[in-house]
This record gives sequence, structure tokens and C-alpha cells, in this order.
Amino acid sequence: MLSRAVRIVEAFGPGDTALTVTEIARRSGLHIATASRLVEELGSFGWLQRDEERKVRIGVRMWEVVSRASPTLSLREAALPVMEDLHAIVGQHIQLGLMEGDEVLFVERLTAPGAVINYTRVAGRLPLHASSSGLLLLAYAPPAQQERIMARPLEVFTEKTISTSSQLRSALAEVRRQGYALLAGHLHPDATGVAVPVRDPAGKVVAALAIIVPNDDTARSRIAVLQAASGAVSRAMKYPAPPNP
Amino acid sequence: MLSRAVRIVEAFGPGDTALTVTEIARRSGLHIATASRLVEELGSFGWLQRDEERKVRIGVRMWEVVSRASPTLSLREAALPVMEDLHAIVGQHIQLGLMEGDEVLFVERLTAPGAVINYTRVAGRLPLHASSSGLLLLAYAPPAQQERIMARPLEVFTEKTISTSSQLRSALAEVRRQGYALLAGHLHPDATGVAVPVRDPAGKVVAALAIIVPNDDTARSRIAVLQAASGAVSRAMKYPAPPNP
Repeated sequence: MLSRAVRIVEAFGPGDTALTVTEIARRSGLHIATASRLVEELGSFGWLQRDEERKVRIGVRMWEVVSRASPTLSLREAALPVMEDLHAIVGQHIQLGLMEGDEVLFVERLTAPGAVINYTRVAGRLPLHASSSGLLLLAYAPPAQQERIMARPLEVFTEKTISTSSQLRSALAEVRRQGYALLAGHLHPDATGVAVPVRDPAGKVVAALAIIVPNDDTARSRIAVLQAASGAVSRAMKYPAPPNP
Repeated sequence: MLSRAVRIVEAFGPGDTALTVTEIARRSGLHIATASRLVEELGSFGWLQRDEERKVRIGVRMWEVVSRASPTLSLREAALPVMEDLHAIVGQHIQLGLMEGDEVLFVERLTAPGAVINYTRVAGRLPLHASSSGLLLLAYAPPAQQERIMARPLEVFTEKTISTSSQLRSALAEVRRQGYALLAGHLHPDATGVAVPVRDPAGKVVAALAIIVPNDDTARSRIAVLQAASGAVSRAMKYPAPPNP
């Protein structure tokens, strides 16, 4: 029963804000009558809701509970003011990602009108080997995870994408040596990602702070300001601002 | 079974990021063995997780699904770039709230270090009669809801808080006449809120865009820029930017 309810909610994929009951039934592998009954029941708790076209959406009540107790809240609260300052300087896209399974999950993002193309969305994912945030996180991940990723086929997005295990191995070593990941045109020919580590008070890498800029020579000049910003996030995690009364 | 799982998750109140199983059992009114079993089952789906101290948190997987299919996503995506521009001009706090039940629910917020005191949090709530966003939304709400709020005792926060139904009735009329809500010192003596309506393409008020500034004479000078910003959000909802490919 509970696992069916979970399958109903997980039918919402990236970019899906509204689904028909038929779509939900198909994606969750449930009979339409079962799906329909569970949608109604979850609706009675405010966890799902119907829009004007009778399509099903995540309910405001569920969003509220999950957002205010977000597992990434303390990291995002430490990072957001710094990201805003950085955004005022750099413009373009600023994003915060963390390792989730074998992908990078983006938990916060600031963007600008007219900024360069960017595949990232809040709560969106990217592969570890092809994004600057992913490569950065993988470089500081346990060796077993690095070997696991290197043993798999690596999806190719552009002619620059890292596509062999030996390329990936040397790229990870370079990230650790330099302390940042800079990937020009690996995910899209026109965009460069630069990512630096965010460390918790114990020094462990817990997130990647990244900028996505046009694929020209400006990216490298942004590394210092990005590193200063990630240091400020780490300090904010160590000495959090007093909560609102 | 499903209703019990909902009660488990809803045990997380504002400001709770981690709870013990005992706390969850007490708040949800479930036997501790039942709560413990459901926590484990929700954990197996990644909907809850344990931290280093064995406390229970909302799981990253649940956060991810709910965030990317957020019921407020289109509104927040239309509003956030405008809020960032406004934040660069005004500084202080910029927030976006919508009516949820008989309260205002804040779905987005930008803040600044050193800004004036502010009770708002993302996914936090405030009463309708005491906050500028709430009063604005109530002014454009159905008359039945206005009467329902006026029939209730109104919680007092400062000596300025609207506390009688006749004060509330005339305040709502003033908001509709002026097109904005300005409350100086109603929630905290040191803070002034100014809220303007965000309208959907059909002209219906769907949200309040507000700034929280120090309780001095500067608030009134911000109304015009706030109204320009809310107009930009409405236009962005009408003609959304093309999605990332």
C-alpha cells in the first residue's frame, strides 16, 4: 500500500508538473482503478491536487512539509547569500550540487536572463563525468565509487566529453591537484562549467559550487572569486547566522 | 496505513529538520513500534533518512521528487529573476507568498546579510491579518473568506497589529483602493512590509510580492519599483522563457 503510494508520487519525472491519472497508472505500473483511488486518497491529505484541467499535481501541503524540513536546508541557507553576492559579480548561472547516488543533484541555482545555455535545474541531475560539478564531487569521492563509474560506459554529449576510463582517471587527478574542475564544452559546445569544493566544518567535501559561463577565455579568470565564495559558504556552515526569533 | 505514513512525515513542523522516532511517535499519535516500522519503510524508499545521530530527516529522494514537480514551480520560475533584480536595487528581504488555507505561505525569499528583522522563511506561514502579504491576499480573496477571518479572534503581535474586525474591514478596503498593502510595525516594531499583487494572465491575484524594510520613511518610496516588478512577473507568466533544451 505504502510502496504503491510512493510509486504514484515518483511517477512525476523531471519537468512533469501535471500528469493525468492514466499517465500515472502507466508509469507506476498500477491498475488505473488502483492509481485513481490512491490519487484521491493522497489528495485528501493535500499531498496531491487536481488543476483546472483535472490533471494531478504535487500538492502545496506536501511541498510545504518537505521544503521546510529539507535535508539540504542548512547547506542551502549557508550558500544562498553567498551565491547571491557571486551572482551580482559574475552574472550567468551559479549552482550548488551534491552527490546523490552516482549523479550530481542540484539543490540551488541562480540564473540570469540572457545567460549562456545551461542544462541544470533545481532538483535536476547530471552525470558525474560530464559536468564540472559532477567531476569535482567524484574527484573527492571514495575510490570505490570512482572505480565503479570508470567501469561503466560514459555517455557522450559533445566531442569534448570525457568518454574513456583513462581520460576520466587523469581528469580526476587533475581536479585534486588544482582544487577545481573546469570543463569547456563537455556537455554543450557553447558552455563552460567551473566547480570548486564546499567543505563542511570537518573539512569533508559536501557540495560543489559552480558557475556556467560562455565557452570563451573568461572562465579561468573566475576561479579565484569562486574559491573565495566557497570558503565563505564553509565558514557560514561553521558559524551559522542566528535564526530569526 | 497511508494516513499513518502521512502523519509520520507531517510530524516535521516548521524548523524541524531532524526528529527522534520517539518525537515522531508522540507528534503523530502512533505507537512507537508502529512509528519505528513506518520510518524504516519510508526510509527504504529514500523518503526519510537517518543522520549520524540516528535522528530522522526528510530524505533527499523525497525532496527531489517534490521540488522538481513543485506546485509553485511556474510561479517561482517567473518570479525569481525579477526578485533577483529587485533585490539588487532594494536589498533587504524580497518574498513571494500565496494563500494557503487561511494563512500566507511563503514559497520564495531572497534576503541580505544585515537586513532588518524578518519572521518569514521559505515554506513558512504567517497570519493573513498581521503581514503585508497576508493582508494583500485577503483583500483580493472571496468575501466569504474575508468574513471568516473577521469573525475570528485576531492574534496581536505589537501595539500596531490589526486586532478588531472593523479595523480589518477598513484595512482591506484601503488595500483594494491603493493596490498595495503597507504595514509598519504590525508584526515586529522594527519592520515594515510592503506587498503588491501578482496577477496571472487572466488578471486574477495569485500571489503577493513583498519587501520587508526598516521601519522608517523609505518604505513608501519603494512602492513604484515593487509594482513594476510584480508587473514583470505577471508578464513572465504570460510569456514564459523557452525551457532549457
